[in-house]
Amino acid sequence: MSRFDLGIRCDWFLGMAGGDARVERNWFVGVKDGRIETVGPWKEPLRRSAKKFHHQPNHVVMPGLVNGHTHLPMTLFRGIEDDAPLRTWLFERIFPLEAKLVGRGFVRLGAELAALECIRFGVTTVNDMYFYVDEVARVIDRAGLRACLGQTFLDFPTPEDKDLGSDKTALFEGLVKKWGRHPRIRITLAPHAPYTVGDDRFREVVRLSEKYGAMIHLHLNETESEIAEHLRKFGLSPVERLGKLGVFCPRTVCAHGVHMTEEDHAALRAAGASVIYNPDSNMKLSSGVAPVPRYLRDGVAVAIGTDGSASKNDLSLFAAMNVGTKLQKVANHDNTAMTAVDALRLATWLGARAIGLGDVCGSLAPGKRADLIFVDMGYPHLQPVNSVVSHLVYAVQGLEVSTVICDGKVLMKDRKVLTLRAEKIFRGAAAMARRISRELAEMR
Amino acid sequence: MSRFDLGIRCDWFLGMAGGDARVERNWFVGVKDGRIETVGPWKEPLRRSAKKFHHQPNHVVMPGLVNGHTHLPMTLFRGIEDDAPLRTWLFERIFPLEAKLVGRGFVRLGAELAALECIRFGVTTVNDMYFYVDEVARVIDRAGLRACLGQTFLDFPTPEDKDLGSDKTALFEGLVKKWGRHPRIRITLAPHAPYTVGDDRFREVVRLSEKYGAMIHLHLNETESEIAEHLRKFGLSPVERLGKLGVFCPRTVCAHGVHMTEEDHAALRAAGASVIYNPDSNMKLSSGVAPVPRYLRDGVAVAIGTDGSASKNDLSLFAAMNVGTKLQKVANHDNTAMTAVDALRLATWLGARAIGLGDVCGSLAPGKRADLIFVDMGYPHLQPVNSVVSHLVYAVQGLEVSTVICDGKVLMKDRKVLTLRAEKIFRGAAAMARRISRELAEMR
Repeated sequence: MSRFDLGIRCDWFLGMAGGDARVERNWFVGVKDGRIETVGPWKEPLRRSAKKFHHQPNHVVMPGLVNGHTHLPMTLFRGIEDDAPLRTWLFERIFPLEAKLVGRGFVRLGAELAALECIRFGVTTVNDMYFYVDEVARVIDRAGLRACLGQTFLDFPTPEDKDLGSDKTALFEGLVKKWGRHPRIRITLAPHAPYTVGDDRFREVVRLSEKYGAMIHLHLNETESEIAEHLRKFGLSPVERLGKLGVFCPRTVCAHGVHMTEEDHAALRAAGASVIYNPDSNMKLSSGVAPVPRYLRDGVAVAIGTDGSASKNDLSLFAAMNVGTKLQKVANHDNTAMTAVDALRLATWLGARAIGLGDVCGSLAPGKRADLIFVDMGYPHLQPVNSVVSHLVYAVQGLEVSTVICDGKVLMKDRKVLTLRAEKIFRGAAAMARRISRELAEMR
Repeated sequence: MSRFDLGIRCDWFLGMAGGDARVERNWFVGVKDGRIETVGPWKEPLRRSAKKFHHQPNHVVMPGLVNGHTHLPMTLFRGIEDDAPLRTWLFERIFPLEAKLVGRGFVRLGAELAALECIRFGVTTVNDMYFYVDEVARVIDRAGLRACLGQTFLDFPTPEDKDLGSDKTALFEGLVKKWGRHPRIRITLAPHAPYTVGDDRFREVVRLSEKYGAMIHLHLNETESEIAEHLRKFGLSPVERLGKLGVFCPRTVCAHGVHMTEEDHAALRAAGASVIYNPDSNMKLSSGVAPVPRYLRDGVAVAIGTDGSASKNDLSLFAAMNVGTKLQKVANHDNTAMTAVDALRLATWLGARAIGLGDVCGSLAPGKRADLIFVDMGYPHLQPVNSVVSHLVYAVQGLEVSTVICDGKVLMKDRKVLTLRAEKIFRGAAAMARRISRELAEMR
């Protein structure tokens, strides 16, 4: 009997275990039952230790990336008038389009397109928040990805209410019942944001989180105006109010965290809540610059995300690492404010911890699930390989990923996604684009 | 006799003529003697009008991109300790490495690697500044690219002085004599920067520029510290001093222009000088944010550049458009501060004008040279095609470029560069990486 199901010889190996970004040359990874059994120097006899053997010369083997915050089905809204004034874009385009178009079919198709894109860009784990979570879960299951999927809680009617009913607790409990034991899917609670969710609903979320041990995924302090609005409405800052309601704990994942006072920062840190940095979205929507160096310095669990495709137009975390690191350097007037190593930590080891999967993925070490990607260094823009770490953050774009393995299963090989049918999905997306175009023509 | 040498049917056509970013469906481009003869709606009979016919379904045909400021041979320094403090990185790593390694061989190899990368990313025109310009010119000639190549003028010894002598005027005039009539190469004058070049040398540059009609390419107001240093040394701001020396005119191209007072801005604008925005480099080196919306509003000719690969680690202008647009939105607290259309203008029509090639390239219109690229929309992250313009700026990374034509000649087809030998260049770069690694070990 073979010792491993899969043996991988790595020309370059970046395991990120414990957040360490040391690169090893000529390394070996042994996988059994979807789990990493061993990691260490390559020796020729290891070739015969595995049922299947994989070696791609000139590739870096590293952990699959973790997208800390996104809305997968929004891929279908990619490129909708993104340079319009913010309120026009959001209130007169995106929200009305969602109200018109978002149903089971839209969510399934958008999630399929997103899953295809995630795999193509080496993202193996996604922390998502949207509607019709059951549809998203089915896509994630088929695609072979790992995901935390958040049932959205909102005070006002949502696209799914007509179809699935407005009782979010029942929806959430149904999802937990159906998907709770899935090896790659976790169901989370997604109260949309402090300014859109009332006290009672937050209390219910906290109750459910405690009962089921479920993560809480919310938007927090993304823009200055939402904070001002919250202060007017509640007489408290968002962090003050949510603190009182018991929302912050080590199971709480706060997307954005752009505008944070010292008190806000201290409260989140004391509670052990985590924060997701979405640099492209924060830039494109002119929201501001999240204080990531402070999060890193103070040991706040922090991850990096793309946000939905309506605000960052692609789901490439490599591109997000690149822009996110440079943004911190220029915003802090200090070219050491955030480094390539920081970025890699956010997108792997630290990222998995931030969304509650620290024991599952985010690094290549014995005991972790086998979520690995292969990045091809054989491009002009990655030559010479003076530094693997620098190239991965400052030069790799995403399309250089050639093979993706999640939970020990090969999802993409030689840039061909094996679990989803791209052509069928593209046809569906094109049809949806025609519908969107007609709706937009009416809105203008 | 055929009417065209090359006929191109375009599923999507983005000509950028006059800066107009309107997208046409099902369009035709006819090329004769390397020049665009006609542009207009596709009709089936046009298929027989050309000796060669080209059609790539699901591709956008657009002008080859213009890289407004770079140092091509520095590709070999890609990824050298880019997160070290700025002064360490520049004065203790890059400058000593240049002094040790930069010679004819280094420049040739670095320029070859850069040319390969430019073609791969759809950049057909480059405004460069470095040493051993004759070597760079030979590479550009072979690669088939279009370039303005600047002979560097500096007050202190340069890497080429030992080899080629210190008389920059003789070097420049030799280059003009040799390359002055080349159809794709223009020789320019590159006084490095106000703080590194004295009055006499600037006067000589102005004299040569007038005599030969040559462009002047210099670094200007990249960092606050260089401006302060200049004030201490000369008692004048860089723009004041260079204005008095007669440096600014419509032939002057100022790289960076990050820190500009109202007076600086007015002076450049009045002189008709142009400015190159290098967003990645300015971010990564924490130099600041160039006032691009002001340049655009006031009609200052502005282009976009990558800078050298030591500061922006790749030569992708698509990536630069993406980050450069988002940077303006967040820095100006206004998501309309710079748009996707602005970015496309900077990288094509406006870019060519800024570097003195407005009559030659930068748009697809009759009379322009045939510099065209084909961008493949058949990727998950570019579906659905709700907006070609948005996708080109906010989602395309560079590797989606599949075919590149410059001056009517095919340089890359189906992602294979035809004019350069990638494997040989990669081997040379790997050997140089080993030398760099040894030198770095000694420096640390």
